[in-house]
Parts: sequence; structure tokens; C-alpha cells
Amino acid sequence: MKNSIGTSVILTLSGESHGEALCAVLDGLAPGIPVDETFIAAQLSRRRPGGATDTARREQDAFRIVSGVFKGYTTGTPLTILIPNENVRSSDYDAHYGLARPSHADYTAHVKYRGFEDYRGGGHFSGRITAGIVAAGAVALTALQARGIRIGTHILSCGGVQDRPFGDFGQDFDHLENRDFPVLDEVEEAMRTRILEAREQGDSLGGIIQTAVTGMPAGVGEPWFDSLEGMLANALFSIGGIKGVEFGAGFSLAAMRGSEANDAFRLTDGQVQTATNRSGGINGGISNGMPILFQAAVKPTPSISRPQQTVNFLTGEEATLRVTGRHDPAIIRRICIVVTSLTGIVLCDALALRFGTDYLGAARTNGGKA
Amino acid sequence: MKNSIGTSVILTLSGESHGEALCAVLDGLAPGIPVDETFIAAQLSRRRPGGATDTARREQDAFRIVSGVFKGYTTGTPLTILIPNENVRSSDYDAHYGLARPSHADYTAHVKYRGFEDYRGGGHFSGRITAGIVAAGAVALTALQARGIRIGTHILSCGGVQDRPFGDFGQDFDHLENRDFPVLDEVEEAMRTRILEAREQGDSLGGIIQTAVTGMPAGVGEPWFDSLEGMLANALFSIGGIKGVEFGAGFSLAAMRGSEANDAFRLTDGQVQTATNRSGGINGGISNGMPILFQAAVKPTPSISRPQQTVNFLTGEEATLRVTGRHDPAIIRRICIVVTSLTGIVLCDALALRFGTDYLGAARTNGGKA
Amino acid sequence: MKNSIGTSVILTLSGESHGEALCAVLDGLAPGIPVDETFIAAQLSRRRPGGATDTARREQDAFRIVSGVFKGYTTGTPLTILIPNENVRSSDYDAHYGLARPSHADYTAHVKYRGFEDYRGGGHFSGRITAGIVAAGAVALTALQARGIRIGTHILSCGGVQDRPFGDFGQDFDHLENRDFPVLDEVEEAMRTRILEAREQGDSLGGIIQTAVTGMPAGVGEPWFDSLEGMLANALFSIGGIKGVEFGAGFSLAAMRGSEANDAFRLTDGQVQTATNRSGGINGGISNGMPILFQAAVKPTPSISRPQQTVNFLTGEEATLRVTGRHDPAIIRRICIVVTSLTGIVLCDALALRFGTDYLGAARTNGGKA
Amino acid sequence: MKNSIGTSVILTLSGESHGEALCAVLDGLAPGIPVDETFIAAQLSRRRPGGATDTARREQDAFRIVSGVFKGYTTGTPLTILIPNENVRSSDYDAHYGLARPSHADYTAHVKYRGFEDYRGGGHFSGRITAGIVAAGAVALTALQARGIRIGTHILSCGGVQDRPFGDFGQDFDHLENRDFPVLDEVEEAMRTRILEAREQGDSLGGIIQTAVTGMPAGVGEPWFDSLEGMLANALFSIGGIKGVEFGAGFSLAAMRGSEANDAFRLTDGQVQTATNRSGGINGGISNGMPILFQAAVKPTPSISRPQQTVNFLTGEEATLRVTGRHDPAIIRRICIVVTSLTGIVLCDALALRFGTDYLGAARTNGGKA
Repeated sequence: MKNSIGTSVILTLSGESHGEALCAVLDGLAPGIPVDETFIAAQLSRRRPGGATDTARREQDAFRIVSGVFKGYTTGTPLTILIPNENVRSSDYDAHYGLARPSHADYTAHVKYRGFEDYRGGGHFSGRITAGIVAAGAVALTALQARGIRIGTHILSCGGVQDRPFGDFGQDFDHLENRDFPVLDEVEEAMRTRILEAREQGDSLGGIIQTAVTGMPAGVGEPWFDSLEGMLANALFSIGGIKGVEFGAGFSLAAMRGSEANDAFRLTDGQVQTATNRSGGINGGISNGMPILFQAAVKPTPSISRPQQTVNFLTGEEATLRVTGRHDPAIIRRICIVVTSLTGIVLCDALALRFGTDYLGAARTNGGKA
Repeated sequence: MKNSIGTSVILTLSGESHGEALCAVLDGLAPGIPVDETFIAAQLSRRRPGGATDTARREQDAFRIVSGVFKGYTTGTPLTILIPNENVRSSDYDAHYGLARPSHADYTAHVKYRGFEDYRGGGHFSGRITAGIVAAGAVALTALQARGIRIGTHILSCGGVQDRPFGDFGQDFDHLENRDFPVLDEVEEAMRTRILEAREQGDSLGGIIQTAVTGMPAGVGEPWFDSLEGMLANALFSIGGIKGVEFGAGFSLAAMRGSEANDAFRLTDGQVQTATNRSGGINGGISNGMPILFQAAVKPTPSISRPQQTVNFLTGEEATLRVTGRHDPAIIRRICIVVTSLTGIVLCDALALRFGTDYLGAARTNGGKA
Repeated sequence: MKNSIGTSVILTLSGESHGEALCAVLDGLAPGIPVDETFIAAQLSRRRPGGATDTARREQDAFRIVSGVFKGYTTGTPLTILIPNENVRSSDYDAHYGLARPSHADYTAHVKYRGFEDYRGGGHFSGRITAGIVAAGAVALTALQARGIRIGTHILSCGGVQDRPFGDFGQDFDHLENRDFPVLDEVEEAMRTRILEAREQGDSLGGIIQTAVTGMPAGVGEPWFDSLEGMLANALFSIGGIKGVEFGAGFSLAAMRGSEANDAFRLTDGQVQTATNRSGGINGGISNGMPILFQAAVKPTPSISRPQQTVNFLTGEEATLRVTGRHDPAIIRRICIVVTSLTGIVLCDALALRFGTDYLGAARTNGGKA
Repeated sequence: MKNSIGTSVILTLSGESHGEALCAVLDGLAPGIPVDETFIAAQLSRRRPGGATDTARREQDAFRIVSGVFKGYTTGTPLTILIPNENVRSSDYDAHYGLARPSHADYTAHVKYRGFEDYRGGGHFSGRITAGIVAAGAVALTALQARGIRIGTHILSCGGVQDRPFGDFGQDFDHLENRDFPVLDEVEEAMRTRILEAREQGDSLGGIIQTAVTGMPAGVGEPWFDSLEGMLANALFSIGGIKGVEFGAGFSLAAMRGSEANDAFRLTDGQVQTATNRSGGINGGISNGMPILFQAAVKPTPSISRPQQTVNFLTGEEATLRVTGRHDPAIIRRICIVVTSLTGIVLCDALALRFGTDYLGAARTNGGKA
């Protein structure tokens, strides 16, 4: 489905970095979900560049909901969110057209779109597109929260600095909601220092993020092929910079034995739970009622100011590129809220498929259903 | 789409481990692809358990193509492959029903299917279902090969033993096609030894597999949300036991700087290529013409003969489980051909979406198209 | 989705008229639906040719359910139904290959499948494929019936003979279930006479069928673009021979005024109903709780024994064709059960999308859902 | 897919009659299609109410393309068209909330959206939403035209006045492009007179429209279930007021014999054609190279000023309704351009599925494809 994701709850993204506006359409949401524009704005502010460790591009993200909300609640018809682009300096990019930035999508976009691509600021491939995910995701997260489902994401490692993994999920989620730099331990300063060092050296950093979901009911997901892992991974790999996704203990499971890797079942207050959670809350593609846990690898921002060898695909000649313009020395801080938001949208879809479109909303009428 | 994957080339899987037959329907294939039953049988034999390091269950995999092939070629209408189940010993499982095997799908299937699941041998969650992927994939691989696209998978690590990564792709693919135990270096015996050790200890092993695709044209895939990474990951996470997927340098990118991680572009014989391939052949979700490279983490087989703590979800009591029956001490050898096959099917879909359904087949008539 | 239809409940059809077997995979069904093979066989017998007014091809329709049913109930995983082809006389067709039968799919199949089509007996375009719809539909109808939803189809007109429209739905459905020739009034003999007359003259007849659905809850369907009308019409137009579909008063609405066409609302036993039902139970694409009503036009069977002018698309020459082989002088009798069955499958899909996959099944466990 | 239609070329519609703006996202278009805003505006003007025979609501349809176009051409990424709502008089509707307008979607929307529907002016069910179809369709029609594919729609009957059917397609299309009231014969005045009579009597009219497509290559469409008829019908039935769709001779085929109904094949200038076109250019769901022809029944506008019996679904009481506000006494004139536009979008999708996404666009680079 190209620029859309989902089966029952469907997100469609359009827009380019330097176009007039970004657009996110979220279809299939239940009616009756409260839409709080202050909350959406707060979520967007967590994605917005905001300091020396981010790009110098400043955006207001003055979103407008142009459909799908009436009297403060979702109507059940598609929610359309517009985010106008401002502070656009396209001339930064025009001069470089043809010079493929290494590990960017310049060259692949040129081939795929046959020379008609909007190349300004990465066009439709820009991380800027993720603002629509965050705005739409805010509504999804509100709906999930009303069902007792919470999601949080933190930076597990960056620049050689490790954060601790999730511990007490409720406390950790509360903690993260109040932090601009999403880490659990006292590692913000150390990470920021490494990011600034990289920036000063004309370089950039990546890292690993970790996401947890609590309150997800068991029995959601499909064996072949809409496994929860597959649905989430398909979504996550659309986020520029994510090159690896693992669930639960992930790649470290490869070195374990079965007796170490298996999650023994036990009863806790009469509920079936597992003693450990190396499966990340998913067995056979289906939620098992334990927290869903995954990590994603974020590559270093490919835009660096150091000179790089490349090819000018217009002239067909090798060339040296020195990227100017405004870039993030590490995108990982800003990716966290994008991952949380996209996870929320994917889970709304999985829940609506299983329990119906009414599951996440509310009713003012019993309608025609007995 | 539940038990189907794909948009233009679509695979649908049905069947249970101990049911009458497995079924794979592959729809959307171009007409005119030669269908070689000997090749399909050979591919199936590479997935089949075959020695002390595999399950003792022996299957003939006597597949039958019941539609979609006429006079030796695909017709363009859906290919249906049936694989009858034989050598079924259901009583192994009946006695254990209710005892959720740790890290298996017994419990999640019970919740999702509300007590009506076919619990024999893992039912629809059984690795046995992957035989249909291999049989259907054989046709997809034939079509890709005719376009110069080749795919290979090997065990990169298992039980602490490392294989070397792909080097000369063509030679490595040739080498793998002639090996029952898919490794590149002289590590088969060491790996087999570790697997047998684990088996003797009532335990199991996982590992990491690596897949490469050569010949993929640039410009295939979508930015949001059908990125090539997302399409492949969604497929791969359906394979039981895969808990992590990474492209190119994957998780190790997280610790690099941009200047280390970026793949410089260069010209090779007038073609745009990259000097390194840490992106795994994909930028912005779209193929860049370099080999597609990914690794997947395979957890240890959850069925182990050691006693394990669990819950009987029928009685609601904690219990000790000792899995009997026939199981693989390490499924990783057999997963390799499944991953190759599924990758082939996904790439056929991506190619057909971009270049049309005729791209991968042949014509005996120019039809109505000028 | 090519040979599949549906979003949450998905039917995939494969097979050719003279291939080894037909296959229908019905995915997304709730678990816990009783599967009664006797009922399936009875439904198939209503589609089967059975007298002088049908083709002389005799089929046993000895179907086999090879997955998705366990201990008599659907498991929730895909149901696979195989129907082996028997009584195949392919040589009837080989001699005619290249001679495009007028108003058949011979020529379009040749162009689309580029000369690789299975041309025997219409191949994948054969009405024989609808046997899979009927078999799978029997399970869907059982599930709907348990929710109080019933469906019936009768021949409204054929060969100039009119049946009366539906009156008392319950009685009419009961009546139709016991009739091999589905008409409401005493018109069977008159219709059969006309069909036999046409046959004797080497010709064929079409007609109009009418379908009703009762018990459908209000609020199901989408405004844009999965309207109930659109979902049903998309399904119906796949049935060979259907060239028109109308809901409620349909084409006759075009000649009415609004004051005649509108269905006034009223209360009946406290329920919102309409006084008339010219809308066919659907407003704005969504069910309104009244019976769903539609008519479909069935063209005369294109296979007639009279000589016809045509083209040999292999030689590129004009030619005269005289169709031999075994054909129905009027397919309309057999189409009725196909339409009923396909309608049931489409409605299961629409209901599952709205109310969740559990809506149509049963539970032996409350699973993880509070 | 709810408010989206298409597989490779996908239209998503959002917005409500009295919301801030309508939005149409057209994804999957080839890059390199020229986008002419003057042409889009002209197409919108053909849908816009413009005289005594239409609603008194006046809209500027001041659309803005906010993504997907760069330097005058489609980029290949999603095209987003915004149409702000103006001239909104919501108070017309507030007073009537609860009073279900007969044969409107008020009641079904209330049930489906559980009391949270935007009820102003029909909300998301308003014919106003079709402006997005026309704007997006203009781009699709441009792309088709470049491939020699043309589409036209006229009013075949309205108020008892008959237009002649299509004759010389090229001339008829030229003629229609210059007419505000789309009829082929000299019947505009007679039809307008009937419409005004109905309006004066507080009533409304419906009618039948006829659409033709020329230049469509043979071999496009699927047998089961994305038949061209099914794809088009699914789209058409989303248009409010359309309650019947027939292809070629449609319902009149039901009364013919096979010898009358069949379209004999013949050679014309070496091309396979049919002597007649009662199949409407489609055999077995697949285009046969002849003009695609269909008719659709449009019911009379349900909004009439005569008093009507209804139910207040908020109070649960029967009531008398007299619709005020601004309404079309006959929507059929304005539906013609909507049908043409939507047909164009559906055919772009079908063509892209068969021939690839590049088929309808242009290239400035040969990219990576040999």
C-alpha cells in the first residue's frame, strides 16, 4: 500500500520537506476518541529540534486538523492533519542536486522517480514527514490509554553511553513523559556530550532505542503474515535511519540455549504470565499479555559536514561532496517519539482487526446493534 | 492480510502440522515461468529434516501442483501447491493439551482461537507450514534467476561457531546450492557438534542467518510504508523463531559514526555503485542496485526435553512440562532455504509492483499491447 | 487483490476447469463455527448441473476440507477446501484453441496471459470455479445464521417468465431451501420450457436474479469506498455472466421522483425501520437494518451451438465457430446458490471489520480479553 | 480499505461538508505526469453548482495542491489536494439533528459512528466530497490521455427525456468537453425544464448516466475478484445516489438469447475487434480492446422540500420533516464529471497493476533499469 499502512486503522502520509504542507490521514479510528490539540502539540514538541544536539531548522509544527473531529471527538471518518512547512530554505539543496549524499535516498529517489523527484531537503524521504506520524499517533495513544495500554521509548545507547533497560514500566513511562531527552538513567549529559563532540568533528552518531508497551491484551496478531512483529517491523523500517529491529532478547537469543531463552509460564494473581520476557510479549506472532518489548538500531545521521566521495548522477562523474545546510548530529532523540507514535497506530490497527472498530472508542447511542 | 502476503504477487498459506495437507497459493505470478518439479523437490529436500541434528519426523513432501501450471509453464492464474501430511503421530500432542510449551504459540493460539485451535504439533504455527513457502518460492526463484537475480542464505553463527560473511556472491551462491548444511567456511562439523551436544543435554540452539540478493535493479521499494526492508521484515518475522532482522551493518551501525557508516558512491564501469555496503543495498526503503544484505536472529528451538515450568491453561494450574515427541535441536539449518524462498517471493512482488506483472515472465503473443 | 476478496474475511480461489482440482481458501473466519459436511454437500448439489436444462457435464463435487477445521469446528486459521475435477474431456477444447468464443474470455485470457493460458473448458474463467464459492460460502452462511442473518436468491425472470419478488422473507427463504429450481411462484415449468426451447434451437437464455438478506444489523459498511453496495457488486461482477447489479429499486429509481423514491422512516416495535425499502437496506453505503435487496442481470450463456463468426487469434484469420462440448442453455438456476454463497462471505467480512473477528464464532475460553 | 480505493494507484478521501477542508490523496501515480492547475479548475467547474437546476450553495473550489507536484509534474510521491470549504451555513442542519432524512445516510451514520458523526450537511457523506475525486481525477485523465485513453459521460435519461447513446466516440467526447450540461442530443432544455418543474413541486429527479472509455488496451483486469467491472462498480457505488451499474447491454442482456447477446469477433485493420459491443468492452473481467461502456442509475436527490414522515433518532419519536437548506433538484448533471474522474482513477490503477507504475508517466533518466 505504498504510503499507507494498516488494514482497519490506516495511516496515509504525504508531503515533502520543502513543499507547502505535510499531510497525515488516519482512517478507521473509532468514533468517540477525545482529541486534545494541546496534547498533540506537546507530542509534536517532543519531536521538534530543540537544541545544539539537533538540526538548526526550527519549525512551529502549527498543525491543523481539517477533518474527522467534531465537537472535540473523533467522528469515525478519516482524521486529516495538515502541518504547514515553514522556515524553508530550498536554495541549500538546489545547488547540490545531482550529488548523491552517501547513505541518503537521493540516488534511489532519482532512479525510482525517474528524474522528477522533489529533491529539496530529502523531499518525501525527509525525517520531517514523521511529524505527521506524531500528530496522528497522539490520537491513537489517547485511545489506547483509555484501554489501559501505554507505550514508551527511550534511548538505550548512543555514542557508547548506555541507558538502563526498562524496569518498572509504569514509573518509567511517567518519567519519560516529562523528559525532553528520553533516557531512564542519569545519562543525558554524557550522551549530549558525545553528540556535540561528533558534531564538532563534522560527524554524527546513531544508537539503539528501546520501546515497551504495557496493557496489551493477549491474542492479538496473526501467525502468517501479519504477525505483531511483522506489522511493527514493517512500520519501523519506514523510519529513516532504522536498520535493525529485534523483539525481546532479539539477537542475543541467537547465542542462548533453549533452556535459557524460553519464558516459563506461571500464574500471577490467577493470570497466565511468563517469568521472564525474552520473547518480548509475542509468541507465534500473537501478543501473550506480557509487555511488548523491542529494540531498533538507528544508524548515524548520514548528513555530515566532512567531505565525502560520491557521484553526480546528472553528469555521471565522481565528485566530492561537503553537505552544508542544517542537520541533526544525532536523530535518535527525536526518533523516540516517532517510534512510540507509530507503534500506537499499528497496535490500534491490530486491536481493531481483532475486536472491531468500536473497541477503542465510545458510544452515545447503542445504534442498531443489539 | 492475515495468512497472505503481497500486493501484486501474493502468497497465501494454509494448513496445520497434523491436518490432511498444507496448501500454498501463489497468485499474481507472470505467465510463462517454467515450472520444474524436480527443482521444487530439490528445494524441499533442503528444508527437510535429514539427520541427527534435526527432528526425527520424516516427511516425503510429496507435493502436487493442482492449478496454475499448464504444459510446464505458469499460466498467470494462481498456482496451488498441496503438500499432504504424512507420518503424523498426533497422540504425542493430545496428552499435553493445556500445558503451554514455553516460548511456543500454544497459549497465544488458545487465547486467539478461543479454545478451538488445532493444537496437534503446533497446528497452523508449525514450522511444517514453511514447506509451502519453499515449494512456491522455487517458482519465484526461477523467475528471478531469468532476470539475473540470485539469492542465497547461510548460517552466520550457531552455537558459538562463526561462518564467514558473504564474499564473492556468485561463487558463494554456487557453493551453497550444493550444500545440505549451508555454510561458507569449513564450519559444518563444528556447528553440528554443538547442536548434538545441546541435543544430548535436552537443550537446543539458535543462531544467526545471513541472506544476500544480487542483481536486484535499483529503484524498487517504497518510502512509506512498503520499504523493501519493511516488506522483507514483515515476511521474515512470520517464520517461527526469527526474533530480529537487520539490514547491511544493522545493529552495528548504532555504534558507528556517520563517516564510518556512510557508503560512498563511486562509478564502476560507468555504473553508480557504493564503495561499501553497510546499507545492505537499500536507501530510503528503495533498492540502490547493490546486493541486498540482511541478517536474522533465530532463537533456540523452544521444544526441549528438559523439564520446564509452565501453566495448564485448561485447568488454570501451574505444572511441570517435559516435551516429548520429535523436535529439532536447532532449526537454523532448515530455516535458510525458507528465508531464501520467502525473500524471492517478496522481491517478485516488489518488482511486479514497479515494472508490472509481465516483468518476470514470458510471452507467446504480443497481445493487445502496442 | 486479484483472486482474493475481502479484508478481514478473505476468500482466495484457484483452479481451472480441467486442472487437477479447484481450491478455495477462506481466511479470517472466527473460530468455533460448526462445519457440517452434509450441509456443504447439499449446497454444492444445488449448484451442480442436474437435468436437461443444464450442461451434460456431471461432477461429484467430492470436496475435501484439508485445513482449518478441527473436531467439527472452524479453528480460526484458514479453511482450505479442495474439489477434485472429474469427468474431464479436454479434447473437446484442444481442437478449438485459437477460435475465440464470442463473449467468452478466450481472447482476453490469451492477451492477458500472453499465450500461456490454460484454455481447456474456460480454464480459470470457468463457471466451475464457483463450486469453491459455494463450499466456502456454506460455512459463512452457517455463521451468519447463528447471528440471525439469512440469505436467499431466486430467479426473478428468465425467458420472458416472471417470478414474483420477495414477499414474506422467512417463508420465502424456507421455500427456496427446499427447491432445486429456485423460484417463489409456480413458474418453474414455464421457465424450464423456455430454456429447453432455446437449447433445441442451439441457443441460450439469461435472466435476472434477486437476492435478499434479513437480520443484517444497521451500521455496517463504509461511505468511501467499501460501501456495502460496492463490496457486494465487486464480488458479484466476478461471477461469469453477471453484467448488471442494482440495489433496492435500482434502475427504476431513475424514473421516480424523490417523493416516490424516498423510504420514510417509522417506528416498528420501537425499532427504526423504513415504510418502503427502495434503498435495498443500504443508505450511504451502510446497512440500515432493513433487508438488503439486490438484483443482478445474467447474460445468456455465451456457449451456443449455432455457428458464430469469430477470429482465430493464433492464425489471425476470421473463422466460423460452432461450439460443441457440454454447456448450460441457461446458467441462471445454478448461479442463484453461487450468489447467495458469495453474498454470505462478503457480509461476514463486513461484519468482522465492524464488530471484530470473534463476532461470528464461539468461545471455549475467555482468553486474555477482560 | 474504507476511505481509500485502489491497489497500485490509490485514492484516499477525507473531509466533511462543513469541515475546514476536503482532502484527496492520490498515491501511486507515475512521476512525470504534467499537472495543469487550469485544467483541474475547469474540471471542478463542471461539477460545481451553477444554475437554477442545482443547489444554491456556491463554492469556489479554490483547491491547493500541497504535495506530490514539483516544477509542474507529478513526483511519483502522493499528490495531496486540499479544497477548503466556504459558504458554510451549518445552522441549517443543527436544528434538524436527530430527524433522519429519508433515503439519506443520517440514520446509518448515527448508528455506525455511535452518535459522534459530523451531521452538518451530510458530513462525510456529502456529495461535496466528490470535489476531491474530480480534482484528483483530472491528473489521472491527463495521464490516460497521453496513452490515448479517453473517457466521457453523459446523461442518458432524466425526467423522462432520453439522450441518444454514444455514437462516434471521438466526436462525442469533444462535444461533451465543451458542454456544461452533458448531453449528446438536443435535449438540454427539455431536461432542465423537467428538473425545474420537479423543484417547483418540492420534489427531485434522478436519471441514468452513460460512460464510455476508448483506447483501453486489451488484457487489463482480473478474473476473480478484481474484474474491471467489479473495480469500477465498487468505485461507482460509493457515489451517493448511484443504485445500479450495468456494463454494455447490461440488464437488457437478461431478455436476449445468446445468439443476440454474443459479440462476434472480427478483424478490423488486422486488429481483433467485436462486431457489436454488448459486453461493454469486458470479457471475463478483462478488457478486450473495445470501448468500455457502462450505465449507472442515479436515484432522485433525497433532499426534497415536501414534508416527509420520519423518526427522530435522538428522541425515539416519529416526526414530520420538511427539509430546508440548499439542495439540488437533480444531482445527475454534476455526477457525470465525478463518474468520468473516478473511472479514470480506477483505470490508472488497473493499468499500473498490469504494466507497472512507469506506464502512465515519463522519464528524465533511465535510472537503474536496463
